[in-house]
Amino acid sequence: MKQIVTFGEIMMRLSPPLNYRLEQAADLEITYGGGDANVAASLACLGLPAAHVTCFPDHQLGRAATQQFRRLGVDMSRTVYTPNTRLGLYFLEVGSALRASTIVYDRFDSAFAKLDPAAFNWDEILQDAQWLHWTGITAAVSATAAQACREAIAAARRLGITVSADVNYRRNLWQYGQRAQDVMPELTAGCDVVVCSEGDADDLFGIRADEDAENSFASMAQKLTERFPQIKRVIATKRKTQSASHERIKGMLYDVAQGYQQTPYYDITPVVDRIGGGDAFIAGFIYGTLKLDSAEAALSFATAASALKHTIHGDVNLATVAEVEHIMAGNTTGRLLR
Amino acid sequence: MKQIVTFGEIMMRLSPPLNYRLEQAADLEITYGGGDANVAASLACLGLPAAHVTCFPDHQLGRAATQQFRRLGVDMSRTVYTPNTRLGLYFLEVGSALRASTIVYDRFDSAFAKLDPAAFNWDEILQDAQWLHWTGITAAVSATAAQACREAIAAARRLGITVSADVNYRRNLWQYGQRAQDVMPELTAGCDVVVCSEGDADDLFGIRADEDAENSFASMAQKLTERFPQIKRVIATKRKTQSASHERIKGMLYDVAQGYQQTPYYDITPVVDRIGGGDAFIAGFIYGTLKLDSAEAALSFATAASALKHTIHGDVNLATVAEVEHIMAGNTTGRLLR
Amino acid sequence: MKQIVTFGEIMMRLSPPLNYRLEQAADLEITYGGGDANVAASLACLGLPAAHVTCFPDHQLGRAATQQFRRLGVDMSRTVYTPNTRLGLYFLEVGSALRASTIVYDRFDSAFAKLDPAAFNWDEILQDAQWLHWTGITAAVSATAAQACREAIAAARRLGITVSADVNYRRNLWQYGQRAQDVMPELTAGCDVVVCSEGDADDLFGIRADEDAENSFASMAQKLTERFPQIKRVIATKRKTQSASHERIKGMLYDVAQGYQQTPYYDITPVVDRIGGGDAFIAGFIYGTLKLDSAEAALSFATAASALKHTIHGDVNLATVAEVEHIMAGNTTGRLLR
Amino acid sequence: MKQIVTFGEIMMRLSPPLNYRLEQAADLEITYGGGDANVAASLACLGLPAAHVTCFPDHQLGRAATQQFRRLGVDMSRTVYTPNTRLGLYFLEVGSALRASTIVYDRFDSAFAKLDPAAFNWDEILQDAQWLHWTGITAAVSATAAQACREAIAAARRLGITVSADVNYRRNLWQYGQRAQDVMPELTAGCDVVVCSEGDADDLFGIRADEDAENSFASMAQKLTERFPQIKRVIATKRKTQSASHERIKGMLYDVAQGYQQTPYYDITPVVDRIGGGDAFIAGFIYGTLKLDSAEAALSFATAASALKHTIHGDVNLATVAEVEHIMAGNTTGRLLR
Amino acid sequence: MKQIVTFGEIMMRLSPPLNYRLEQAADLEITYGGGDANVAASLACLGLPAAHVTCFPDHQLGRAATQQFRRLGVDMSRTVYTPNTRLGLYFLEVGSALRASTIVYDRFDSAFAKLDPAAFNWDEILQDAQWLHWTGITAAVSATAAQACREAIAAARRLGITVSADVNYRRNLWQYGQRAQDVMPELTAGCDVVVCSEGDADDLFGIRADEDAENSFASMAQKLTERFPQIKRVIATKRKTQSASHERIKGMLYDVAQGYQQTPYYDITPVVDRIGGGDAFIAGFIYGTLKLDSAEAALSFATAASALKHTIHGDVNLATVAEVEHIMAGNTTGRLLR
Amino acid sequence: MKQIVTFGEIMMRLSPPLNYRLEQAADLEITYGGGDANVAASLACLGLPAAHVTCFPDHQLGRAATQQFRRLGVDMSRTVYTPNTRLGLYFLEVGSALRASTIVYDRFDSAFAKLDPAAFNWDEILQDAQWLHWTGITAAVSATAAQACREAIAAARRLGITVSADVNYRRNLWQYGQRAQDVMPELTAGCDVVVCSEGDADDLFGIRADEDAENSFASMAQKLTERFPQIKRVIATKRKTQSASHERIKGMLYDVAQGYQQTPYYDITPVVDRIGGGDAFIAGFIYGTLKLDSAEAALSFATAASALKHTIHGDVNLATVAEVEHIMAGNTTGRLLR
Repeated sequence: MKQIVTFGEIMMRLSPPLNYRLEQAADLEITYGGGDANVAASLACLGLPAAHVTCFPDHQLGRAATQQFRRLGVDMSRTVYTPNTRLGLYFLEVGSALRASTIVYDRFDSAFAKLDPAAFNWDEILQDAQWLHWTGITAAVSATAAQACREAIAAARRLGITVSADVNYRRNLWQYGQRAQDVMPELTAGCDVVVCSEGDADDLFGIRADEDAENSFASMAQKLTERFPQIKRVIATKRKTQSASHERIKGMLYDVAQGYQQTPYYDITPVVDRIGGGDAFIAGFIYGTLKLDSAEAALSFATAASALKHTIHGDVNLATVAEVEHIMAGNTTGRLLR
Repeated sequence: MKQIVTFGEIMMRLSPPLNYRLEQAADLEITYGGGDANVAASLACLGLPAAHVTCFPDHQLGRAATQQFRRLGVDMSRTVYTPNTRLGLYFLEVGSALRASTIVYDRFDSAFAKLDPAAFNWDEILQDAQWLHWTGITAAVSATAAQACREAIAAARRLGITVSADVNYRRNLWQYGQRAQDVMPELTAGCDVVVCSEGDADDLFGIRADEDAENSFASMAQKLTERFPQIKRVIATKRKTQSASHERIKGMLYDVAQGYQQTPYYDITPVVDRIGGGDAFIAGFIYGTLKLDSAEAALSFATAASALKHTIHGDVNLATVAEVEHIMAGNTTGRLLR
Repeated sequence: MKQIVTFGEIMMRLSPPLNYRLEQAADLEITYGGGDANVAASLACLGLPAAHVTCFPDHQLGRAATQQFRRLGVDMSRTVYTPNTRLGLYFLEVGSALRASTIVYDRFDSAFAKLDPAAFNWDEILQDAQWLHWTGITAAVSATAAQACREAIAAARRLGITVSADVNYRRNLWQYGQRAQDVMPELTAGCDVVVCSEGDADDLFGIRADEDAENSFASMAQKLTERFPQIKRVIATKRKTQSASHERIKGMLYDVAQGYQQTPYYDITPVVDRIGGGDAFIAGFIYGTLKLDSAEAALSFATAASALKHTIHGDVNLATVAEVEHIMAGNTTGRLLR
Repeated sequence: MKQIVTFGEIMMRLSPPLNYRLEQAADLEITYGGGDANVAASLACLGLPAAHVTCFPDHQLGRAATQQFRRLGVDMSRTVYTPNTRLGLYFLEVGSALRASTIVYDRFDSAFAKLDPAAFNWDEILQDAQWLHWTGITAAVSATAAQACREAIAAARRLGITVSADVNYRRNLWQYGQRAQDVMPELTAGCDVVVCSEGDADDLFGIRADEDAENSFASMAQKLTERFPQIKRVIATKRKTQSASHERIKGMLYDVAQGYQQTPYYDITPVVDRIGGGDAFIAGFIYGTLKLDSAEAALSFATAASALKHTIHGDVNLATVAEVEHIMAGNTTGRLLR
Repeated sequence: MKQIVTFGEIMMRLSPPLNYRLEQAADLEITYGGGDANVAASLACLGLPAAHVTCFPDHQLGRAATQQFRRLGVDMSRTVYTPNTRLGLYFLEVGSALRASTIVYDRFDSAFAKLDPAAFNWDEILQDAQWLHWTGITAAVSATAAQACREAIAAARRLGITVSADVNYRRNLWQYGQRAQDVMPELTAGCDVVVCSEGDADDLFGIRADEDAENSFASMAQKLTERFPQIKRVIATKRKTQSASHERIKGMLYDVAQGYQQTPYYDITPVVDRIGGGDAFIAGFIYGTLKLDSAEAALSFATAASALKHTIHGDVNLATVAEVEHIMAGNTTGRLLR
Repeated sequence: MKQIVTFGEIMMRLSPPLNYRLEQAADLEITYGGGDANVAASLACLGLPAAHVTCFPDHQLGRAATQQFRRLGVDMSRTVYTPNTRLGLYFLEVGSALRASTIVYDRFDSAFAKLDPAAFNWDEILQDAQWLHWTGITAAVSATAAQACREAIAAARRLGITVSADVNYRRNLWQYGQRAQDVMPELTAGCDVVVCSEGDADDLFGIRADEDAENSFASMAQKLTERFPQIKRVIATKRKTQSASHERIKGMLYDVAQGYQQTPYYDITPVVDRIGGGDAFIAGFIYGTLKLDSAEAALSFATAASALKHTIHGDVNLATVAEVEHIMAGNTTGRLLR
């Protein structure tokens, strides 16, 4: 089977144990993650061939990050190592009940942000691929990262490879002198599948649902597919967050041909780790698109995968296909499996 | 007071911290447990003289397991140590919310499974005992274990000692060439008290409740006592599992003389550790039978003990009599005790 | 800004990790706390100048306790170190669901209990202060501690400083030969603000709400302010404890001039650490009184602060002003803050 | 085989992990120990029937301490539990290289110090015993502890049981109004075997080696046996401490009949835990006296046991007979045993 | 560059933290290792393409073991997963000073021991390889493992690939009914390079150094190469073990063409982890043979690599080429590298 | 007593537990340190009034760093908090035996490096000071940091305050476009006391000892004081590093008036943590200069303090005056202190 290739930054995540505050911590737990790499890793855990393309500093931390994704089965052989750079970091304090989790980012001037687009030969990288996935975060990090992303999408289109994106607008990240509203439309135009919430559609593309639409997500998504005719499917999760420890999510899909669908809500309490829930969703949708026989099944699989991710430590959804299918089949009472 | 004696395998349980997956774990927490030994240990914590009879490998792990039950006050002086054997193990991954806990057993060919029935002189072992408890797991492990169990029951009957069993049918365990359906009836026939769910009654004895019975447990239990006239009481817990983190349980009792009784449901969230909840129930019932003045009180005590076990790490219910009575008295709001 | 000064014992708190029982623990986590010192520390975290006055043994443990409060920004420069004494300790076992948390105190004959009142020159200590806070625990610990408390209150009154108290009646603590009912009225008479529950009012002062009162707290509080005319405000939290893991609290205030007010309930599940919830409440109320423009706002701030404390490990509310205001503004769904 | 009975206080030992200082510690590791109880536990590990007699507070900490010695096989059935008392504690900071380990004691007014001598019926306790061991620490703790010790020794003499003591003079401990120099001679006079260093002999009994003695230990010991004619053997270890991490020890024995003997030095680097090294020595000597065929072998066994103890965490020597004999046979290079 | 392929069992290693005894451990640290797989992993850390061939149970533990070697860069794609089998385990207690480390094996009936030789198509596995390495442990585990090893060597010879072995005689392992002395000669005959100590040469092949040989290793090695003419080089380390914490090692080489060479001794104190020191040596020698320009340099590299391994936790030498060369260059004082 | 004021960057240090490699670490231990701040903290531990001046990001990590130095008693009230900046970090891997410890710095573009010199009013900061200490690292970090340092020295000179520096040349750090050789002489010229090794003197000032000098350090130091006539004393430690685990150090002093002195060597094995050993030395020398009665005593104190630091975790020497004096008095065998 051909590879699914993702592109983007991987950061070291440093987090106090349990629900301790950063200032209380005597030590920090390490995991590694990134919105795109998490998708590759989830796909590898689901048994599909996945590769991630990124740039690391040429020292122990870069090697350690490589090892953690290689451990999960992601092909990391295209990693570019750059001397005298740093690894992007983020510090996560995990909340509880009504206390929110908080993130302190420390990712500026990372090896990835400073990447040289010429270091990536996309035609070669994608020659054995069937799918390219990227996120709006990559475009936000730096002009060169956005450029590499642009080139990757162009190569994918040339090679007839499916392209998906999580447009994921993070206001604070866009600091290199270009506006998301100027950069993202061109990149998005090259995609077949996008994850896009109503907020992101408004912020990035100025697209809003009709006020009197029966379903506001569907209305927005329809407009989005009209604006960007390459896009055939728009997906998203809807969260009814009860507290930092209690989440409810459903999946939504607008398909140009088949219209709007959604899943029932999953109730998740306590939440073990909500980071990467969206990445698990898109990974599940890619899996479902490639392996299951309907968009409905893909959406179902994606949503169950995302729900399961909320019960797993770290950025990456370590669930297997059997585990996701177990949830899809309605086994949500957590009965002991011997 | 005379001893309560239990007989069966003790395994080392290895479990990642918190809710980590097995593949994420850098270390594993050790506890020790076994369906029968847990009952002895709970009884010791409740202040009754309890002894456990088992077989261990003659090396550090066997000694460590002995120490942990001796620590809780269980008389381990009858342990048989066998050279060149192994300790049974199981790996437990603790789930959360809709993710189930899972167990990987590694117990075949253990010192216990390979025991020599002749190593146990039951008339001597039981000479100072008033009660013998065993479980269907012991009968499932190997032919020699089942044989030792058979001899223990026979000796108990000879000596006029009460016999109880948790019939506990585990399909995967029966691999030594005999069928549970052939072995268990004879052993069960020697019991005064049994823990038996409706599923187990059907699987092991082909006994089902009348379809139009007012209470299906009572109907099954009545038939069971008719089939095995030595049995005077059939007990079980009923679980309405909400998720891996949220349990609801009640206790049920069918007494040949007094008929059916049940307790209200206890609501337990979050569940700290559900392993051994059933063993805490039977231990509570043995305690109640010996120390309290009615079957109703015994059932109440057993169910409160089982509920409390769900909040305690490890296989064993470390609760004291005062703590169980505190719950029985309706103090379930967990108000701080200074 | 002038200091808020608190006076009382600081104990080392030793607690098994997670929900382990004391007898299971291989190690104990250390924090430090005391009903009065927690108030000073919370105020320091809220950015106000706070000082705590106490007495420690003159060895490593006393120094370590000093360091932990100094770390949070509390002025510990008035600490009296006494040779050949001990540090008060308490062992906390954290419950879960229907299992209660329990405390084993080991605080008798501590350096604080044995303090010499002459070691504290209150006119000097309070010369740069605007507020003095103490608790009924200090008065309960020993005759000399009660005497030092009496002198502190007298000095505060002389200097025109606001005095507050959490009357906090702990029956077991009063063991030095005087009755709380004899000691507390005189001390309470010197206060402007008191935290007093209906139970404490009855136990300490024999004051009960009118049976037909519309609001029993208000009725009690009114009588209390009539008995002790210096008191202008009586506050308390009301808890609807669901379980050791699930708390619901609201704040209540009786103001001599403005009458009764209350906040809505906050729902907190899971509770991370309930110790110090009341101290966070009074600290929030002192902050609100000094910095906000109404008693209502102060009550609101105090209750949100107390709710937040339940999600933070340790005795001390580490919340910042921005975090408390975030909760006050209704952001209780714990949405991730990037 | 008849029991060896020891009598004395057991304390909870709280120690930072590794070489951290007390003020750095976020948690403290728990072990339990006492100079006499360590001997019983070591003997139990060596396979001899050992019992320890002590007094604990009647709460979780007392139960936990009981469990830890019961775990090692010590008969704890004579423990007296006293309500409203405390468990003795000590805080240990482990040094390294030239930084010394330090202990902060917090043992005054413990349940043991406040024991009632009448609670111990020594004739009954010792009826199945062959040996009684006590230490000078027990006599130092309180007048009632010294009295109980006196009565135990008297009973032992009545019953013809061997009595040993580690006279172990700790200046700081003697604070109950009697002088060690007045109390210890009477108690020591009842012993058959004593551990006594030259320093202790001088401090407690005013006995010094002859200045021109060939061997000063032998000279002191001879005088000691002349003063107390019941004493037949005096033993001690000699330490050439290189640093907190590097110890050298040898064993010395003076036998009234056979004169002086010593072992070669053992070199131990790094030292894992030096606490209890002397207790391991006396336990080894008791084992050797009862099971081996010469005083020389007993001394050899004792010294090897003590050396081994320095490599084991905690107060108690967990070594088996086979392990001690392995060292005695000269296997000190730590070659891997598969 | 073509792959180096290794074949053999990988076990989960479970070890108490620090120097704790197994019976003291509340948790066990997990690493994974095997005498052959350690070589592949060390080579991958040195930057060479390495693959390991093994057999695992088809459950979480097998997946976890795969992940850990994949993490280090070993090609694990030929792993055979077998249902209803177990993972081999070993429990390691790390000694200190004069206390030896001890291993409790629990590896019988593992997935690897029960492998089906037909599951491995060696001509395909080795088609892209330049080197095959195996150990005597593989031949000892079971008849089918020995048979697979035999077939692998035959295929390597057919394909003209270099074969190396660590003959590593472990008496206790040979329990499947054939004698090492019958099995090993045939397998050894197919090797170009062997690690063989004088003890192993005697035990396995009855070969001893001439009594009057100038260098006994060289004498033995010469005879070995005469007996097995395919062997061109015999290597080994010589250990002067001072204690469990202090090791001295040198490397030795006998080359049919160039005769005997050795390195100076390295002094290693404290030893962090001695397991895998020999595997690091052979990995270093393979690296040196392929990348350096003389047998002397290869021996030097191998010995420095082995010395470095003693300072690294786990079975695998995580050292890089630069680190080994740093040691080879004489930088053994551990000066801080910024 | 007037303050000793230090100025420089504080970094978060992240380090795997024990001797684990960075790529093995599942979590990282946090401490905080900086060459100048460590001096202030050591002085505070020695009981002198110390203040540190620095610049932090205005988020949780900056607050946490402040707390850790405030905990030790350092006056942190002059800290400047800058929005949208980062905290300098370094990752430390602790070696063992012949494996070196390694540091990965991640400190560029930190809040401190980007400080605005105008934010520091040195005349005000130093108004209550008697001593200013800085290091060459501060001058290396950025032009603005060097400028602030220049202004601090000038103010100190104006106010008649003693100035000391550790010239500490770190080649890799100087990356802001100016050469150390151009910047450092001016700054050094304003100092009364400098720590300067022979290597640093050569690299920074081109000063070398006379080839035929009896003592090369004295020769270098004499020339240094001739070049910079404000300098009255030059000090340094000399290390004979045996391995990453074994250090030998002595102290050296050249006094313009009194000439050269040195201490004997201290032998430290095992080394717990060598980071900050030099900072402990200068702190000890400042203490000795202010409190002891001779340069010889100051040097002795400084060297004993530095030796002790090698046995303490973290960057800061937590030793008390009594502990340093204990070592100075020759008590280096680490005998247990009760």
